[in-house]
Order: sequence, then C-alpha cells, then structure tokens
Amino acid sequence: MSHRSMLTAIVIDVPGEQHADEVAFWSGATGKDLVRLSHPEYHGARLSSTLVLLVQELGEGASRVHVDFHTDDVDAEVDRLIALGAGLVDRLADWAVMRDPAGLPFCVVQAPPGELDDGPAITWP
Amino acid sequence: MSHRSMLTAIVIDVPGEQHADEVAFWSGATGKDLVRLSHPEYHGARLSSTLVLLVQELGEGASRVHVDFHTDDVDAEVDRLIALGAGLVDRLADWAVMRDPAGLPFCVVQAPPGELDDGPAITWP
Repeated sequence: MSHRSMLTAIVIDVPGEQHADEVAFWSGATGKDLVRLSHPEYHGARLSSTLVLLVQELGEGASRVHVDFHTDDVDAEVDRLIALGAGLVDRLADWAVMRDPAGLPFCVVQAPPGELDDGPAITWP
Repeated sequence: MSHRSMLTAIVIDVPGEQHADEVAFWSGATGKDLVRLSHPEYHGARLSSTLVLLVQELGEGASRVHVDFHTDDVDAEVDRLIALGAGLVDRLADWAVMRDPAGLPFCVVQAPPGELDDGPAITWP
C-alpha cells in the first residue's frame, strides 16, 4: 500500500506567558491573522496553498520552532521516517512526535480529508 | 516607498558533525535532494513554488530550526519587524539576524531577483 505525505506546517512553540505576544508578532510579520484553532492551544494561518504557520502554547519547555508532516497514513509515515534515521518519541491518536538524527523534534499528523490532493505531496511506494 | 516580503525558508541549523546525517535525513524525508549551495555551509532544496528547505552547518551553538523572510528591501523589512516587537541581532551585507518577542532567532534576507514576483509576497506600504 502506498501512502502520501508533505511537509506542510511551521510550528512556533512558546510558553503560555509569551503566547499572546507571539501570536500578535507573527500575525503582523506575515500579514495573516493567526486565529485560535479547535485545538485551543494553537493559533494558525495559511501562508500559501501548501504552508501553514502555527503558534502553539506550551505547558512547559523552552521556546523553539518545529515542522509538521501531514500524511494520509501516520503509521506508514512513521515507519518510513524511522527507516531514514528518525526516532519515535510519542504516538498519539492521530499524530506522532518524532526526533530527527540531530535530536530536533518534529511531528507527523493525520491530514484533513483532501488536503494532500492538490499540493505537491509525495506518494511513497 | 513600499517594499515586499515573504516567509520563504525553513532552516535547520546543526553542528558540523551532524550536518551530513541531517542533509541525508531531510533529503529522504522530503523526497528532495538537498544540494550544496554557493554559500557552502548550506544545503537546500525547493519544496514548493513558495518554500525552500535549508540545512545549515553551524560553527557553534545548539541545533535548532529557524525561518527566513525574503524581501526586496532588507532595511525596510527590519524596521517593519522591529516596530512589531522583534529585535535586531546582527546586520550583515545582504541579510539581518533578528529575534522574535520570545527570543527565537529568524533572518531577513535579500531576495534573488524575481523571486517575489510570482509568490504570495505581501507589499507593505
């Protein structure tokens, strides 16, 4: 079975006390209003047809930037990335937290229906 | 005078000893060969018409991810972002290192000729 994936999101992670300032700054910097999502710890805006910018409120931890892959098969994508040298940190209901070979965190997220149809998603054998 | 800018690059910064592994991993993960650029500390690939992925070899410092804005007027873009709450860290010949309100580094880079013409660049008054 083949599956598809695409690097689709930049996520800026900041502690709660800095979340509002970060949302305001990155809204102004990109010219796009970052609005609160259904997962309320996130604000987000679409920057282009293939890229979303998110600001996530962290419960703990240092500020950082990470990227998300969206995919139509989280398990297959996790397996593909492990074979390339990534590590699995946490597997949740519809997403996974991973680390690249340098230890930088990134996520693999179940794509909303149709999201991968029009973009430059790659089909993996 | 108006100027234009666009968030156009994701940059993965890693120390020299991890650079080759990171280039290999992110080439495989995205399905795009990251090739060495004219600035030899960078490998890069275009992920879409509006987004580039770079891996930068750091001389020192911890691994991290940052973003770049490309612009047709670095000074005007730096001034615009300072007014929004960013700080200027370093101003070089054709780019600037800045920090967002949470202290996360990002860069403002002179766009190659024509790069901003076709994408969703924003024109700032």
